[in-house]
Formats: sequence, C-alpha cells, structure tokens
Amino acid sequence: MKKFLNDPKRVVPELLEGFALAYPEKVRLSGTNTVVRANPKAAGKVRLVTLGGSGHEPGLSGFVGTGMLDCSVAGEIFSAPGAPKCIEALREACAGGKSALLVVLNHAGDVLSANITMEMALREGLNVKMVLTEEDISNPPGDRRGLVGCVAVYKVAGAAAEKGAPLDKCFEIADRMQRNMRTLAVAVRTATHPSTGNPIFELGDDEMEIGMGQHGEAGTGRMQLKTADETAEIMLEKLLEDLGVTPGEELLVLLNGAGATTLMELYLVFRKVAKLLESKGIKLARSIIGEFITTQEQAGFQMMIARMDAELLELWDASADAPFFAKP
Amino acid sequence: MKKFLNDPKRVVPELLEGFALAYPEKVRLSGTNTVVRANPKAAGKVRLVTLGGSGHEPGLSGFVGTGMLDCSVAGEIFSAPGAPKCIEALREACAGGKSALLVVLNHAGDVLSANITMEMALREGLNVKMVLTEEDISNPPGDRRGLVGCVAVYKVAGAAAEKGAPLDKCFEIADRMQRNMRTLAVAVRTATHPSTGNPIFELGDDEMEIGMGQHGEAGTGRMQLKTADETAEIMLEKLLEDLGVTPGEELLVLLNGAGATTLMELYLVFRKVAKLLESKGIKLARSIIGEFITTQEQAGFQMMIARMDAELLELWDASADAPFFAKP
Repeated sequence: MKKFLNDPKRVVPELLEGFALAYPEKVRLSGTNTVVRANPKAAGKVRLVTLGGSGHEPGLSGFVGTGMLDCSVAGEIFSAPGAPKCIEALREACAGGKSALLVVLNHAGDVLSANITMEMALREGLNVKMVLTEEDISNPPGDRRGLVGCVAVYKVAGAAAEKGAPLDKCFEIADRMQRNMRTLAVAVRTATHPSTGNPIFELGDDEMEIGMGQHGEAGTGRMQLKTADETAEIMLEKLLEDLGVTPGEELLVLLNGAGATTLMELYLVFRKVAKLLESKGIKLARSIIGEFITTQEQAGFQMMIARMDAELLELWDASADAPFFAKP
Repeated sequence: MKKFLNDPKRVVPELLEGFALAYPEKVRLSGTNTVVRANPKAAGKVRLVTLGGSGHEPGLSGFVGTGMLDCSVAGEIFSAPGAPKCIEALREACAGGKSALLVVLNHAGDVLSANITMEMALREGLNVKMVLTEEDISNPPGDRRGLVGCVAVYKVAGAAAEKGAPLDKCFEIADRMQRNMRTLAVAVRTATHPSTGNPIFELGDDEMEIGMGQHGEAGTGRMQLKTADETAEIMLEKLLEDLGVTPGEELLVLLNGAGATTLMELYLVFRKVAKLLESKGIKLARSIIGEFITTQEQAGFQMMIARMDAELLELWDASADAPFFAKP
C-alpha cells in the first residue's frame, strides 16, 4: 500500500485534525470526529447536520461552512459513526431550542445510526427532521443508495437555512432536491483500503463496471472499457430515462471523480453530456465538475443529474464558503 | 491504459471544449486551445496571461476568472504551446493599448515559447512584462523548475490587477511572491501518458522519490516509502532551510495532490507540517490543500511554502472566482 500514513488505526482522528488545522477560519473539531463551523450561524437559523464514513475526502466534512453544513459526524474508514456520537452532535446543534435537519445517505450503517439517533432525538424533544438521499439508479426504487447527490442537498438546503427558512421549509427544499436527482457511477480501477491495505474490489484489465456503489458495491454489470463519449451516452441515457426528463426542462449536471480519474477525462465526458442534452432540447442550467466524494485512489466517476426549478436554482447559486465548496 | 478517452490525438481540444461548456459563466475558448474570461475586466486593467502544457488539469486554465488569470494558452499534453499561439493571445490581451503580465513556469519548452513571444511582443510595441516562476528546490538556484507556486503568483498578481494596479506594480507583486516561495515534490507511483499509453517513469514497490518534477523529471534521490509524518518533516525542513525562514515569520502553506494521492493523506501530512511550524515559532498564516496542478493519476504531492507580508496576505485573501479557485 503506497500511501502516506502513520498508524493505520489512527487515520481518521489524524486526518480530521489536519483538516481543521488547514481551515481554522472555516471549521473546528467538536469532540471526537465531529466537524462544526468555526463561526456558527445566528441562533434562530436551522442547523444542517450530516453523518457518514471517512475515507471519501473531501466529503462530507469538506462541505461544512457558510451556506452549507453546520456539522458533519465522521465515522471510521468506510463505516458509519455510532448513534451516541450522532445524538451528541444533534444535541449540540439543537441547544437552546434551535432546530436541525439531518441529511443521511442511504447506506445500511448510516441509516441504522440515523434511525436510532432520530428516535432518541424525538424522545428528548429535539426539533429535528431527517432527509434520506437515495438517488443511485443502479438499484430499483426503494433500494437505492445515496451517492454524490447529497452535495446538492447540502447546497440548496444549506442556502435556505442560511436565509432563515424554518425547519419545514428546509426539509421541503432538501426533499424536493432529493426526489429530483439521479446518480450513476462507473469504475475502471479499484483502490486500496487505507486501514487493511487490501484492494476494495477486482476488475479485469479491459473492464469497467457501471452502477458501482460508493464503496465498490457490485453494480448492474461489467462491460469492456468504452470511450469517453460512449460512457457518457450510456450513463446519461439511463439517468434521463429514470428521472423522466422531457425537452425544455432545466438540469444541473455534476460529475464527481472517484479519486484517480483525471479532470481531463471528466471534461471529455462532460463535453459529450452537454452535446447530447443540446441535441435533445434539454437545458443545461448549471454544471460542476470535481472531486466531492471520493473512494481513495479508485478510478471512475459518478454522474448526477437533477431537475431544477427557479427556487432550487436560486439556492444553488447562493454564496457558500466551505473548504471544498465555495461560491462568491 | 484505463482512461475515458476518445481519439488520443484530440484529447486537448476536446478537454478544453468540455471545460468551457461546463463553466460558460466564467470562461470561453478564444481560437484554438486558448482560454479567456467570459467577462473581461475593465479596459484599463492589466491582463494576466499564462501558458503551459495540458494534462495537468485543473491547472493552468482552471485559474482563469475574476481575480486571477485573464488568459491561459494551453499546449498539447505535457508540452508547451508554440510561440505563434502565445503572441496571438498577447495581442488580444493588449488590444486597444492594454498592458499584460505574462507568467511562465520554468520548463525548457515553455521558456522557449515565452522568450520568442516576448521578443515579438516588444518589437510590436505591446506593453508586456514577464515573470518566470522557478521555485522547485530540488535543483540549485538558477536551474529551478516552476511547480505549483504559479497558483500563488496568479492569485496575488491577479488580485492586484483586479484592483487596478498598473503593470509595474503587478510585476513587482508577482516577482515578490515568486522570490519568496519554495516548492518540493514527492512521488510514489507513476501515471500513464494519455496520448502514448506509456508509464511516465518507474518506481520500485516500496520507493518514493523526493524532488521529482511536474512531468516525472528525476529528483534528488529515491528512498524507502516513509510515513506521512516523516515525509512531511523531511520536505518541510528542506523548504524552510532553502527559504531561510526564521521564527516569527508568516507562511502560506499549499499542498498540491499529484492526482491519485488522496486528500486524506494530504491532511495527515499537513497536520505534521502545522505541528512542526508551531514548535518552531513560525506562524502558519494561510493554508490550502487540494489538486491544483496534477500529472494524470500520479501518486504524490507538492509542498509549497511562501513567506507572506501584509500586502501579499491581503491580495491572497481578496475574492476570486475561477472554476477551480473561488474565494467569497
């Protein structure tokens, strides 16, 4: 395993410590493995909280900051934080009668922790609602994972909360974003688990796999490696069909590099996506390309599309200042 | 070669087309392989122009935008753009009597093109100055490559130009930044050249190489792979010594991932850098971690430190809005 590490068992606290030291004007650590804003928003405003495993940097903690998340509870590598840490974070977020929206990506461990946390929170009388993101179309509806779409939810719900929207409104925005987004992933090369040193999955030398989950969960099928244009077309067609996009609608398109796939390649893929959308009369309203939620040095990417309306676009465009998502 | 490509000979025009389609509100293509701002700054303000090979995305074109570059002339993969393209870009930048600052990274091909371009520009009476960045301490002074430090030069000189500073002042700022910065690179795994499909260099399974150039040029020596803390210490000590940093001084620290090295690892390295600086009484004034100038899926990183004064800090903090460098 050729990674710059110290003690493999202490990767998570050390990486979070380094992160907080690098961005002291934006984030700070609160207790073990919980990242909060350095400058909390005004007391009356809704707090946005998320939880999830580590090893996917910059996500999820990279999106804590003005106009996005207030708190991210980080688990160990690829594993959910326990409910005790999550309820502690919610108590802090809701202290003094504040309300909070918990955004959870649909993965078994995260949902287990989140459900226990929500039960405890409601029993304690905390004013909390939860949104589950489940936009990965490689599984049938009702059994879908949460992938990079959570970033769009953080952005629009975070902007609404920053503007002072009440909890019900923040929930409605997050829920609307979640229902109108779809993601599909492709992988061409595996990564090494930073704690165990083992490869995460196996793929043949000339193979790619579409529909792979964030942690290498099996997808809908392996095929021979395709060109950038072919890959873009296969994935976009599946996404458009699943979301039921019709000509004239406005889309946000987000490409999320898995880790080792270059921006160069993502630009080629995006080029074809833009051309296909134009040929279909679908409006490319906004687009963003980068590494948001990675899986170590895995090669591949996630393509996310979302149907946008005027309100979601305005919230998407609002200023933000998180370490890995800034908009002037 | 497991990359998402189409025709390997058309990688550069296709990637730039995709980039411009993704960020239409920020950049546009001007002629072949030249990226300019979508919204030019006011006529009286100095233009910041750069040039360099492709395959290092997001750099250099990713930094075209408000408060940073006005124009980036992109070459083919890992090779400089020719002087004819560069002079064309300078003519456009200087049209109507405007002045321009050309920032060039010290690599043989880039400098050759830049020198021919500057000769032609001065003969044509264009109001242009040039700054050469050469901060890679793996070679002795006078023979040093330009690495990721160019991003800091773009940032501070770009902010000065945006504020309306005249050409002499923009040059002085860029030159001061360049003289006060130092970079050192380390690599642990090679990448694949996207046009030829060949590995860029070779490294043993348990080796790392410190002092490697942006394109895999040989460094100062190979050694056994070290921990994050050890690597951080070796590199920081060399940088501090070369720059002659003394206690009480204020530094900017920038970590630039080479491509496949995870942010997780860079946070671990940064953590040690921050602790070492604190123990030495050197002030960590600003820090930033990410992928700025990559080399495909190479694993490793560049560590850049820069001595900052009040004026450079103010320019570093000024707002910017390029596709891959935004500050609210």
